[in-house]
Amino acid sequence: MRILVLGSAAGGGFPQWNCRCPVCQLAWSGDQRVKPRSQSSLAISADGERWLLLNASPDLRQQIIASMCLHPRGAKRHSPIGAVFVTNADVDHLAGLLTLREQQPFMLFGSRATLAQTGAGIFGVLNKDLVDTRVAELDVSVDTGLGIFVTPFAVPGKVPLYLEGANVAVGAESEATVGVELSDGAKSFFYVPGCAEINEGVRKRLAGAALVFFDGTTFTDDEMVNLGLSKKTAWRMGHVAMSGEKGSLERLASCAIGRKIYVHINNTNPVLIEDSPQRAAVERAGWDVAYDGMEICL
Amino acid sequence: MRILVLGSAAGGGFPQWNCRCPVCQLAWSGDQRVKPRSQSSLAISADGERWLLLNASPDLRQQIIASMCLHPRGAKRHSPIGAVFVTNADVDHLAGLLTLREQQPFMLFGSRATLAQTGAGIFGVLNKDLVDTRVAELDVSVDTGLGIFVTPFAVPGKVPLYLEGANVAVGAESEATVGVELSDGAKSFFYVPGCAEINEGVRKRLAGAALVFFDGTTFTDDEMVNLGLSKKTAWRMGHVAMSGEKGSLERLASCAIGRKIYVHINNTNPVLIEDSPQRAAVERAGWDVAYDGMEICL
Repeated sequence: MRILVLGSAAGGGFPQWNCRCPVCQLAWSGDQRVKPRSQSSLAISADGERWLLLNASPDLRQQIIASMCLHPRGAKRHSPIGAVFVTNADVDHLAGLLTLREQQPFMLFGSRATLAQTGAGIFGVLNKDLVDTRVAELDVSVDTGLGIFVTPFAVPGKVPLYLEGANVAVGAESEATVGVELSDGAKSFFYVPGCAEINEGVRKRLAGAALVFFDGTTFTDDEMVNLGLSKKTAWRMGHVAMSGEKGSLERLASCAIGRKIYVHINNTNPVLIEDSPQRAAVERAGWDVAYDGMEICL
Repeated sequence: MRILVLGSAAGGGFPQWNCRCPVCQLAWSGDQRVKPRSQSSLAISADGERWLLLNASPDLRQQIIASMCLHPRGAKRHSPIGAVFVTNADVDHLAGLLTLREQQPFMLFGSRATLAQTGAGIFGVLNKDLVDTRVAELDVSVDTGLGIFVTPFAVPGKVPLYLEGANVAVGAESEATVGVELSDGAKSFFYVPGCAEINEGVRKRLAGAALVFFDGTTFTDDEMVNLGLSKKTAWRMGHVAMSGEKGSLERLASCAIGRKIYVHINNTNPVLIEDSPQRAAVERAGWDVAYDGMEICL
């Protein structure tokens, strides 16, 4: 499988349009120690011709233009993108579906809860006669028709921000937030861009994996609070931090994962600064920090 | 007033993700005779500090990054964007509102019909406590609070694609598609990115204007049909072509407009090719073809 990181940042991207946190300030000033990053998405291909998208970010149009393998070929109207699998209904994972309009057939997969958000309003631009939308059940392998099979599984998370009511059940394991295991029949890897807690279930599932892309939203749980940007911890936003005793560095250290790559990295996360101590710490622990255009063959 | 063209292309942008029409093929191959263009939006400022957006395109995040005047300044969270006015509810004019999330106050204006599409579903990310949403009535001047006044007026158009039923009233003059007149109290100009027909009402309104940005979607009415890309004429899509006896070149020629600039240019339009006869024809007729980053002082 070829795996291409289309976007490595969390919602809002890096830099974020209205943010002057210390990391965004480096980006706005053009500092070479940080690379701008677009919002969270991967593209995967078994044959190098037809591609599956994991999530459709608001930056998808620019991501396609930046990735020659996703340019149209042959016919007057064409796209190598044959299918899209969405792991939750947050804006950073769903809004790119609006880019995939203009009379182009593709398959769309997601949980019932996630697809419920694409059935009305502005998402009506996706022509029902052309977009083959299919519910993916938890723990059941889905054949994307592209030589790639996807199995979604529930991870601790929460509903999307715009569906939050007065009381939000953070950490609930439901269809609202899923991780996925991808397989071409021979090899497999995991993609978990959002996960509020690394419990024993998550650890067992990822143990021994050849490759895991994992939620790298914040470095510390109180990162946004300490910066005075938000009252919400990473946990409250549905994400586990990298550091700390409950963090992904610690909790996934003993899982014997072949290659570990952080994705969905928030603009406030100091690992985005290439000479930061936090970046050095995650690399010492065997993690890569994904960047847009990063390519991996498995 | 400073006027900055953030995006000069029609819906889908140029090149369009799935299109290999002759003009898009030049863009995909990197031909220097065409400039890539993002989707339809203008930014206007009376003081050079605070900016009004006319429409919020799906490419808005990239447009902000490309425009230093729209970068945040001063506070930890800030944006020079103080207000957004949307002229219809098509994806290319509305989806960028999803980029303006993340706890930032601004004012949002549009007709009742247009704002009805931002009240539910994924647009719930716009925090009602921070986004001051106000209905703009036809033919009534709106004070944006930025030293700029906006007067919307109905032009022949249609409802957005995703709201089309079995029978579409193309050419109806309603709140669904508006043009706007902008004024700083001293000078004024018009922005009409979608207009299905140039009737006497449109001609009278624009007559004698200092500056008009006008619908430049297609060169010929049957452009998409002839290319085998669609069964729809420009008229059916709610746009008047440039050429022909009903076209904007002919119908606006005698209106004594000071400066005429085409915006909302579709990827199929040969005026995008800088050495094309169609480009030469519109320039001979006194029109400019807008490009991303074009700046005008009025």
